[in-house]
Amino acid sequence: MRTQVAIIGAGPAGMLLSHLLAAEGIDTVIVEARSEEYVLGRIRAGILEHGSVELLRAAGLGSRLDAEGLPHRGIHLQFPRERHHLDFIDLIGRGVWVYGQTEVQKDLVAARSAAGQSIYYEARDLEISDVETDRPSLTFVGSDGRRQTVVADAVVGCDGSFGPSRAVIPDSAKQTWHRTYPFSWLGVLADVAPSTDELIYAWHPDGFAMHSMRSPSVSRLYLQVDNGTDIDDWSHQRIWDALAARLGDGQDGWTLTPGPITEASVLPMRSYVQTPMRHGRLFLAGDSAHIVPPTGAKGLNLAIADVALLAPALVSLVRDDDSRSADTYSDDALRRVWRCTHFSWWMTSMLHTSGDPFDDQLQLSQLRWVCSSEAGATGLAENYAGLPIPSGSTRF
Amino acid sequence: MRTQVAIIGAGPAGMLLSHLLAAEGIDTVIVEARSEEYVLGRIRAGILEHGSVELLRAAGLGSRLDAEGLPHRGIHLQFPRERHHLDFIDLIGRGVWVYGQTEVQKDLVAARSAAGQSIYYEARDLEISDVETDRPSLTFVGSDGRRQTVVADAVVGCDGSFGPSRAVIPDSAKQTWHRTYPFSWLGVLADVAPSTDELIYAWHPDGFAMHSMRSPSVSRLYLQVDNGTDIDDWSHQRIWDALAARLGDGQDGWTLTPGPITEASVLPMRSYVQTPMRHGRLFLAGDSAHIVPPTGAKGLNLAIADVALLAPALVSLVRDDDSRSADTYSDDALRRVWRCTHFSWWMTSMLHTSGDPFDDQLQLSQLRWVCSSEAGATGLAENYAGLPIPSGSTRF
Repeated sequence: MRTQVAIIGAGPAGMLLSHLLAAEGIDTVIVEARSEEYVLGRIRAGILEHGSVELLRAAGLGSRLDAEGLPHRGIHLQFPRERHHLDFIDLIGRGVWVYGQTEVQKDLVAARSAAGQSIYYEARDLEISDVETDRPSLTFVGSDGRRQTVVADAVVGCDGSFGPSRAVIPDSAKQTWHRTYPFSWLGVLADVAPSTDELIYAWHPDGFAMHSMRSPSVSRLYLQVDNGTDIDDWSHQRIWDALAARLGDGQDGWTLTPGPITEASVLPMRSYVQTPMRHGRLFLAGDSAHIVPPTGAKGLNLAIADVALLAPALVSLVRDDDSRSADTYSDDALRRVWRCTHFSWWMTSMLHTSGDPFDDQLQLSQLRWVCSSEAGATGLAENYAGLPIPSGSTRF
Repeated sequence: MRTQVAIIGAGPAGMLLSHLLAAEGIDTVIVEARSEEYVLGRIRAGILEHGSVELLRAAGLGSRLDAEGLPHRGIHLQFPRERHHLDFIDLIGRGVWVYGQTEVQKDLVAARSAAGQSIYYEARDLEISDVETDRPSLTFVGSDGRRQTVVADAVVGCDGSFGPSRAVIPDSAKQTWHRTYPFSWLGVLADVAPSTDELIYAWHPDGFAMHSMRSPSVSRLYLQVDNGTDIDDWSHQRIWDALAARLGDGQDGWTLTPGPITEASVLPMRSYVQTPMRHGRLFLAGDSAHIVPPTGAKGLNLAIADVALLAPALVSLVRDDDSRSADTYSDDALRRVWRCTHFSWWMTSMLHTSGDPFDDQLQLSQLRWVCSSEAGATGLAENYAGLPIPSGSTRF
């Protein structure tokens, strides 16, 4: 089988890339190790940056987002006895949207299905070959048990942090950076209306807590817990009690409304970056090249920004045989990657207790400054609501 | 001997407090463990915040500062291949002054001497008594070998981090926070005109370096070194070579001019806070209550801010028998102390290499953001040039 761009991974990065390339007449094939149901069902991020929303709208993917998404002006930042609303619209003129990654994925699946996109789900034994040539290829065993080969002009790894793409780049040609955090998140989905209008990020002596949401009737909540925490040690009652204590601390007149928990899991926190994000005709986008802790809500948005840069670069490469944007893709993308990696680390470091009393005071002093200084609040806002999507992608 | 306020320590905090109290007709006695020559000769900070300069001027201590001090608009922030000038005047409307602590000390000694201030230098065997009563007292052996007793309405510990004042507060009544940093500064004074108009703070893979100054003909320079560094292992040539490499990295057309080094020493870096800053009739101001690493140029300025708050509180207490400001002094002062403690930690953490490659990238991303975002630059500027001196002291 022959295509112009072979994409590994049918998550939001791969599907959006396919969608953007199709709009420019570029043919793609998507190969995905998991089933369609698994990819659609997995629970991930829930916040879209202003620029991500604009890109999805410009790509014709905004109608359900505009109808069902929840525009937020900012976030609440809380510490004992104080809760401050940081109004991003007032501070920098742009806010964020609550619209789950699962919803973005549904919209992408609908759009690509309508266009007749070739997607091979449940592909096994994937091999990535000849990426240092002009004719890279994928071979895999499809869900029907047949071995397939896809020959392309370029291969893009959108296969996340556990996919095979990043490993194809030889050690001698890459560099990696890691950080594992000494805490995890216990996250729950609950069928209850959120007890807050906008997200609450709360510092508490017992650890960080967060009140997020997926819709007007579905709440998403998180608790900082120790690494290695067994979810079975946390009854639903214990979870709600801890959330109420941390989120309600000193907040007179505010209460957390509990409800049926439909999903609960413990999420590790780590930072990871691999450079460069290109090797020959293999390009990396999204989690395959970088992982951030979820505190800054950057993972999905960073994947979208990568794709926004990569799509026009691939159009130039495979249609016009012009490699200039492809050659600068990695450097261009990594500026934003490191900015978001730093911001995600910074939000994480500011809000999660370490057990060191000096750290507690540094965090509280920083929180007070962010909530009282226009520069401090603006710095958080411009990073959280997101830097502009790279100009190379403005045509989308 | 009877006085209204007995001050322990004849450094800038104690001398300025005595000066401000005298202006309100309050009588003070100063007791100092060291000799006058030692106190005048020791080399310390060199940067005055805008608010510190205004306070010194308002207190009649500004004439030599205005004649000989060097007003700076901001600082240079440097990392490999880039040097950015952060212009505090443009960003927030106020800058800083280069005027060494030794010069401030000379001005204070001159003013207090002219006023006939009682200062007991080289006092030994100091004992602080009855601080939980209305008649606290000091006893000590003066330089003439005679034992003296000073009975006062209040005692103020301006005796630095190694003085006896902070230890007088019982453990049950105090809390302390510590941080020792895993690096030190090798600092030199050199008889050579600075090779820069304003201070350079430089991140470098080999470690932090800084080009400061004391006057148009005296340079002050620093290198990050390992803890436990023996100054004898660093020849003057080695020092200049390291400074030239770190400060000159990628700075085309810029060179560091070496010159005779007149002083070289290794300075440990630590953060320390003790709370509360008051126990009964004993008050702490400056280094006796808090130590910051020097990266943010906050130590002297924080001492001045403490004194600016404390002086009017003591006037009300000892002259008007009104304890309200004295009762809130510790909480009021600590808000600024923690802000500056955080800022000093932040500047230190951003600029000193840890040996962890992930930290390097976080630091570089943060430096790029501070130098490219108005919010980032403004946040640094407002902390560096200093928050307004507390309003309780506006009468000075």
